[in-house]
Amino acid sequence: MTASGAAWGRFLWGGVRVISSGGEGLFADLYLLTMAYAYWREGKTQPRAVFDLFFRGAPFGGHYAVVAGLDRALRFLDGWRFGPADIDYLASLGVFPDPAFLEFLRDQTFAGDVDAMPEGTLAFANEPLLRVTAPLVQATGVETGLLNAVGFPSAVATKATRIVRAAEGRPVVEFGARRAPARDAALAAARASVIGGCAGTSLLEAARRYDLTPSGTQAHAMLMMFGELEGFRMYARAFPDNLVLLVDTYNVLRSGLPHAIQVFRETTDRLGRRPRSYGIRIDSGDLAWLSKRCRAELAAAGFADARITLTSDLDEYVIASLIREQGAQADAFGVGTKLATADGQTSLGNVYKLGACERVPGSGRFEGVIKLSENRAKITNPGVKTVVRFYDGDGRAVVDEIRLADESPPALPREFFDPVDTWKRKTVPAGRWEGLLQPLVRAGCAVGGLPPVAAAAERCRTQLASFSDENLRLLNPHGYHVDLSERLWQEKQRLMRTSGT
Amino acid sequence: MTASGAAWGRFLWGGVRVISSGGEGLFADLYLLTMAYAYWREGKTQPRAVFDLFFRGAPFGGHYAVVAGLDRALRFLDGWRFGPADIDYLASLGVFPDPAFLEFLRDQTFAGDVDAMPEGTLAFANEPLLRVTAPLVQATGVETGLLNAVGFPSAVATKATRIVRAAEGRPVVEFGARRAPARDAALAAARASVIGGCAGTSLLEAARRYDLTPSGTQAHAMLMMFGELEGFRMYARAFPDNLVLLVDTYNVLRSGLPHAIQVFRETTDRLGRRPRSYGIRIDSGDLAWLSKRCRAELAAAGFADARITLTSDLDEYVIASLIREQGAQADAFGVGTKLATADGQTSLGNVYKLGACERVPGSGRFEGVIKLSENRAKITNPGVKTVVRFYDGDGRAVVDEIRLADESPPALPREFFDPVDTWKRKTVPAGRWEGLLQPLVRAGCAVGGLPPVAAAAERCRTQLASFSDENLRLLNPHGYHVDLSERLWQEKQRLMRTSGT
Repeated sequence: MTASGAAWGRFLWGGVRVISSGGEGLFADLYLLTMAYAYWREGKTQPRAVFDLFFRGAPFGGHYAVVAGLDRALRFLDGWRFGPADIDYLASLGVFPDPAFLEFLRDQTFAGDVDAMPEGTLAFANEPLLRVTAPLVQATGVETGLLNAVGFPSAVATKATRIVRAAEGRPVVEFGARRAPARDAALAAARASVIGGCAGTSLLEAARRYDLTPSGTQAHAMLMMFGELEGFRMYARAFPDNLVLLVDTYNVLRSGLPHAIQVFRETTDRLGRRPRSYGIRIDSGDLAWLSKRCRAELAAAGFADARITLTSDLDEYVIASLIREQGAQADAFGVGTKLATADGQTSLGNVYKLGACERVPGSGRFEGVIKLSENRAKITNPGVKTVVRFYDGDGRAVVDEIRLADESPPALPREFFDPVDTWKRKTVPAGRWEGLLQPLVRAGCAVGGLPPVAAAAERCRTQLASFSDENLRLLNPHGYHVDLSERLWQEKQRLMRTSGT
Repeated sequence: MTASGAAWGRFLWGGVRVISSGGEGLFADLYLLTMAYAYWREGKTQPRAVFDLFFRGAPFGGHYAVVAGLDRALRFLDGWRFGPADIDYLASLGVFPDPAFLEFLRDQTFAGDVDAMPEGTLAFANEPLLRVTAPLVQATGVETGLLNAVGFPSAVATKATRIVRAAEGRPVVEFGARRAPARDAALAAARASVIGGCAGTSLLEAARRYDLTPSGTQAHAMLMMFGELEGFRMYARAFPDNLVLLVDTYNVLRSGLPHAIQVFRETTDRLGRRPRSYGIRIDSGDLAWLSKRCRAELAAAGFADARITLTSDLDEYVIASLIREQGAQADAFGVGTKLATADGQTSLGNVYKLGACERVPGSGRFEGVIKLSENRAKITNPGVKTVVRFYDGDGRAVVDEIRLADESPPALPREFFDPVDTWKRKTVPAGRWEGLLQPLVRAGCAVGGLPPVAAAAERCRTQLASFSDENLRLLNPHGYHVDLSERLWQEKQRLMRTSGT
């Protein structure tokens, strides 16, 4: 397995399907297949349907989410089929009265189109992150897998942008594999964290698979096993030039720090120079107070350039407080649980909703549909849609527009209005625009390859830089304007009046 | 793949190692291998170490966690090795100065012992859920993988017991695959939910793999695509005897319910009898009010036995309120996001701490070690420990004791005292006791097989029944007494005085 690698057959190997042992068809909620059965039974499998994957509310009290997880989405779509064992299992359930349906399923692969926002893109509520266009049974069958693939990585990437922002330029390393919700989740969290701006990960398998920078030093067990001073010395003998010592096993100021300084001295004497990279890690206690005391004592001992790494249940709020309010002395942060679980919104809460369908199979003429609700936020946007982001003359993102894919190209200057508070209007005189949905899959095959993680991280950085601080701040950020095009808005109003009766 | 199956080689195939393509050795935080390098460099790989996996505080404001995830722990331990590609990757990092270390790693497999609480056991803070005894490098190297394997499933199983308790006998189905944090996490969540008492899962792959009951009906898209009435009819033609209709696509009382009643009538006419199983699902809106109105109108239409299933961002608190405070009419619940993310404590927060180590390799004489902290809760318990649960004459669990493994067998009557508030004492006059740690792995091979999920679910039911309602209630439950044995307590006091200087 290589950096951009991973093992999805068809997409990597240029159109040649690699038969894998297990199909992904059963990674589905049962209702997707009972509905598929009902469609099949009535000969309704061929009309194409267009589904949008989006979230209704942004995570963590902010306004945006960072798109991630497309690697998993592609792998899932490539694996979406029903192998013999899958078919046997479905037959054994006794749920599907006509066995010919299972023969139909056996021949299914995903042959549709997917458009997606590239990884690292900032997305806002109700904007399609992915748009799936496929024959009804296929578009239906991939719902669970796509939602699962994209939600958690996007939540983690978003959390990472917040934590990295709070760290104000100090590197943040993702440390959370042990607390991540599964093996896959740990790998996804490491990858998404780096897309969101983290400098690296502690998890070797993720570093290898995604070409990330692995990071790590020592744990308490080593010092409990051999004693603190001897444990430090053993580590210094092994890694004299990458010497980060964990100082809180017993008592930071009375034991850990003096022992660390002693070993820094011994190592400096042995090398005839300072270690190339050295410092301490504090993993418990009052981090701000301890870090300030440690910095002062390190400086007094002649080790002013020792790096201080802080870890211990950190998140964006704790880091912001440590730096801004408490004057903590920190050169780097390690963040585990709160990042690798996307704490506060482990699920992005993304949904997959029908936007349009063909009435005549193969006609290419799609009719918009809508889901109503007493809760306005749950009313869907109908039609085959795309998303355009407008930038002003300074390159600042000023408004997004959700629009129908067949509208004439956007142009500036334009006056936009808020789809809910229609009296709120905003004129953009000049600038550029960018279509956010890009072809990802065509007729079941990946378009190009997925960019490497570093490119997604770079896109995320560029995107963040195009928004104002007011849009991005951690607490009560200023809302960003997401518009519906006039045509889409009119179509939505029409369907709200006429649907469901 | 079969029910109890899954693909871990060595453990299933009775001692014969199956070489799998990818080793799990790199599913490790880098620091595990830098420490291993330091140990290896000084010839310290052979002393055996004893690590405890435990949590410091129970999740969700309760006192217990339900053990789950041993399937993943076994699979990880079986796969723990470094294949050629793993070694190449480690060499490429340039982290390990002496390449002979990588040759040493290449020969490593997990050859240690693991004792564990069986899945479904209720565990309390600081009790070892797993105890690992292995040569130092092996015991160290499996830390990340074991914590990752056990934490999330145990959190989900615990959440499930709470939700099932709130449902007061009504079946709860796990619906959360789409919101689970990864593919693996979705499978683990379904399995753990059933261990915790759920009746089934919507996720087919989990149902197949773990022999669970799959469950599901229809989604909004079907009704948006074909119209609500025609969508209901299509579904009724396909599944006349398992006819659960989703009534909230447009308007429950004005549209969904009347259409459902119409289709129940048509289906009853067509069959010449009622459908065997039928009802409605409400997925949005005021669930209590809507469910009562629906029950009344269904009864008035002659469908009093229609089942009402409620779904929509439910958890134990919402369900308890729906039933107890609001008089909701519900025959079943589907719970998704909040269950499949273990909402509120996605990570169990479990840790893996050194308890004891051999000073002389192979001597079998283990010396207890301790980690100190200013925070009393973070001070570890030293030694090779086990956990005994004492039941009174009525079969009620009354106290757990964490004790040294080589103490003489427990006996009743006994007076216990609280390890923190030592003035709190409790006498257990008669009853029985149970050792909670059971052999899981010996010399790297699984002892027996893992019991099927149904057995773990049964154990969980039995365990729950042995605790009082006061210990289990959702809000502010009464604490359960977890004692340290006199010998362990004395040893801990001694090490607290003498360690780390």
